[in-house]
This record gives sequence, C-alpha cells and structure tokens, in this order.
Amino acid sequence: MTERNKARPVGEQVSELTAGRLSVYLRCLNTLDAAGVKTISSKALAEQFQLNAAQIRKDLAYFGEFGVRGVGYYVKELKRHLRMILGLDRTVRVAILGAGNLGLALADYPGFRQEGFAIVALFDTERGKIGRRSRGGVRIYAIGEFRKVVKRERIDIAVVAVPADSAQGVVNTAVQAGVRAVLNFSPGSLKVPPAVKLKNVDLTVSLESLSFFLAREQAEVANG
Amino acid sequence: MTERNKARPVGEQVSELTAGRLSVYLRCLNTLDAAGVKTISSKALAEQFQLNAAQIRKDLAYFGEFGVRGVGYYVKELKRHLRMILGLDRTVRVAILGAGNLGLALADYPGFRQEGFAIVALFDTERGKIGRRSRGGVRIYAIGEFRKVVKRERIDIAVVAVPADSAQGVVNTAVQAGVRAVLNFSPGSLKVPPAVKLKNVDLTVSLESLSFFLAREQAEVANG
Repeated sequence: MTERNKARPVGEQVSELTAGRLSVYLRCLNTLDAAGVKTISSKALAEQFQLNAAQIRKDLAYFGEFGVRGVGYYVKELKRHLRMILGLDRTVRVAILGAGNLGLALADYPGFRQEGFAIVALFDTERGKIGRRSRGGVRIYAIGEFRKVVKRERIDIAVVAVPADSAQGVVNTAVQAGVRAVLNFSPGSLKVPPAVKLKNVDLTVSLESLSFFLAREQAEVANG
Repeated sequence: MTERNKARPVGEQVSELTAGRLSVYLRCLNTLDAAGVKTISSKALAEQFQLNAAQIRKDLAYFGEFGVRGVGYYVKELKRHLRMILGLDRTVRVAILGAGNLGLALADYPGFRQEGFAIVALFDTERGKIGRRSRGGVRIYAIGEFRKVVKRERIDIAVVAVPADSAQGVVNTAVQAGVRAVLNFSPGSLKVPPAVKLKNVDLTVSLESLSFFLAREQAEVANG
C-alpha cells in the first residue's frame, strides 16, 4: 500500500456494493493469474468478464493508484492489494450457528478454505449432534459453549444457518459474545446493534436472474 | 406492460448485473408493500435501501415508463412489473442435482417457495438416497431418470450441488435433457453451449464483504 493510501481516512463510507465488486474483481484476477496473464487494462478486464470499465477504475482509484498508464494493472500486484483491502491477508475465522443441512454444507464449502477463511466451529442445540464433526472435520459444539469457543478460537464472523424462528436468538447470542460481523442465510430481517455488521444472503436472487433470462428468451421467441 | 414496452426488442443485451439489481429492487418493494407504503420516489428508495437513485431510474427506464412525475413509483404496480420482467408471473420449476447437505438445504430453502419457485425434484447417484425425500418433501430420483423427469415435470432450471469433480458431468446431463438455465454452486468453471445460461454462485463473496468491513474497522482503530 502506498503512503498516500495509508493516510486515507478509512472512516469514509464505502458501500457494501463496492465490497462485492472488489470481491468479483479478485475472482477475475485469480482466473487471469492462473492463466498466466501478467497485466490487464480496465477495458480488457471489463470486456473479458462483462464488467464496467469506468466502474472498475472508480472503485480501485478509491483505494489508491493501482493502474500504470499504458500498461493497465499488474495482475499479481492488484490481487495482493485487493486481498489486503478485503482483509484476506490474514486468516479470517468463522463459526457457523446451526449444524443442519445448510450449516454442514457451508462448513465444508470448498471455496471458503481456498480464499483464506477458516471454518473453526459449528454450533447446534440438538444433543445427538454435539461432539460430532462435519465430513470435512469441523466440530459441532453445544450452543451453550458459544461464548467460550468464540474467545478461545478468536472468531471473526458468525454465520447464521438456523431456521427463521431461531435466527434472532442465535444472533443475539453471537453479538453478546462479542462477534462483530454476521452472515445470515435465514430469511426475514434480523436486528443487530449499529456496531455489528450484518449481511443477509438471499439465494433467491441467483434463481431470479436465471428466471429473467428464460422470460426474455421466451418473449424473443414470441415476438419472432 | 405498455404497448411501447411490448414492442421493445428484447434481444438487446441486458446484463446479469441488471437482473441482479431488479431482484434487489423487488425485494425492497416487497418490504415497502408489507409496510403499507403506496408510492415511493427513486430518491427515497435509494436512501432507504442504500441504493443508487440514478441507477434505479436507468434500470427501470429500460423496461418502460414506470415512474409518475411528482409521485414516483406505485409500489404494487412496480412490484407486479418487476415480477413480470423477472419471469416470476408464473411458477418457475427447478430440479436440484445432488442430494448432499447443500442440495437438501437448497431443496427446503424457504425463500425459493415464497418467491414463486417450485423445487420439483432432487437427483443423486447414491442408491440409499433414491426414493427418499427431503424434510420438505422433495423426492430424490436416480440421476438416470433425469431426462424423463425433466420432460414430465417441465423443469426450467437445474441447480448443480454436487462435488466439483462431478459437476461438469451433471451439467452435460442437464444440457442434453434440454435444460436452458443452470445455477451452479460448485467451485470451478463449467462449460455450457452458448444457448444455455449458466450462473455461478460464489458464497465466498458474502464472507469477503464482512471481512472487508472488519479490516476497515481495524484500520480505523489503528489510525485512531
């Protein structure tokens, strides 16, 4: 990071949308890096991955001057910077609340480990599950042990994968244990104090984008 | 839909990002409608849900003239239009390939049903699973029956929830059976013919947005 960048007031609000886009850029750079690409312009990056070149330049400029005139971005360099901006230059430690199908699937989700997240613990209320492990080896603890495990394992993020009617309760538990960031897969809106960051994942959005595609295709056929 | 809108050439490329945003707008309108809000301006919509007002106007203008000068948008009307644009004015029928933890979790994911998606069938290769059902009652078929079930149940979308090394194989099966839209949860890139729409879901992006928040928060503390 440049000195100029270090001095930048980080308190300025950067929207969640920006974070999402940085994540997408990182994914694209990983692909380019794996393919042996050394440098890329914002225009080429945009074209190859159907992104917006002006938006890429704007998003990246906010964090410093990463582009080199006439060259574009150095892929490895920009990757490293993005990982730093996204807080991925260290292992981020995650606990999952709920060891049902979704919790177990998330515990062993291969992408998490690849990107530097460590899924450290699962929690459940069902006695038969306590002490067991996910296929990938993540241990299931009783929810009563949450506070203790959060301290001991230095948990950064709690993932909520319980049914909707238990979701607010487990979020409260997480917040009381000092967790500052919550990823919620449960439908319905949860309440957290202002200092805690809550992100809701709505899997429906992805299905809707496909449904949109099918609807347009059908309209095309109908209109000849 | 207005006549003007009907006549609009739907072949024009609308990006997946637009579809994603329309989905988000629909989610916001659902919230407003449930709260009894009748009309809303693009500005108020943007402020309330941390969106971009100019982007909202641009996205919606593409599909017709939904806004009324001095009033904004009629919430129920716009909801109905968005559902139509997103192809949600009819039930969209979904099959899930893979009845492991992720497949079973998706089969019973409450959001899908609420938004008008019907999860019609699960498929697996494991003998012990065939003929059983998810908790929510979705039946598990042998993968060999895929083509037959797709025709009979008029499947619109196939969801891929198998391990990475089986993913391309099951996508090929889906494409050969005539499925035109695929939602892939498996990491790694899959190949489909140009006429088939593939959408990859990367759950890591959501975790990264929280990690980004934590990193910025720490930087703030460090900078005083």
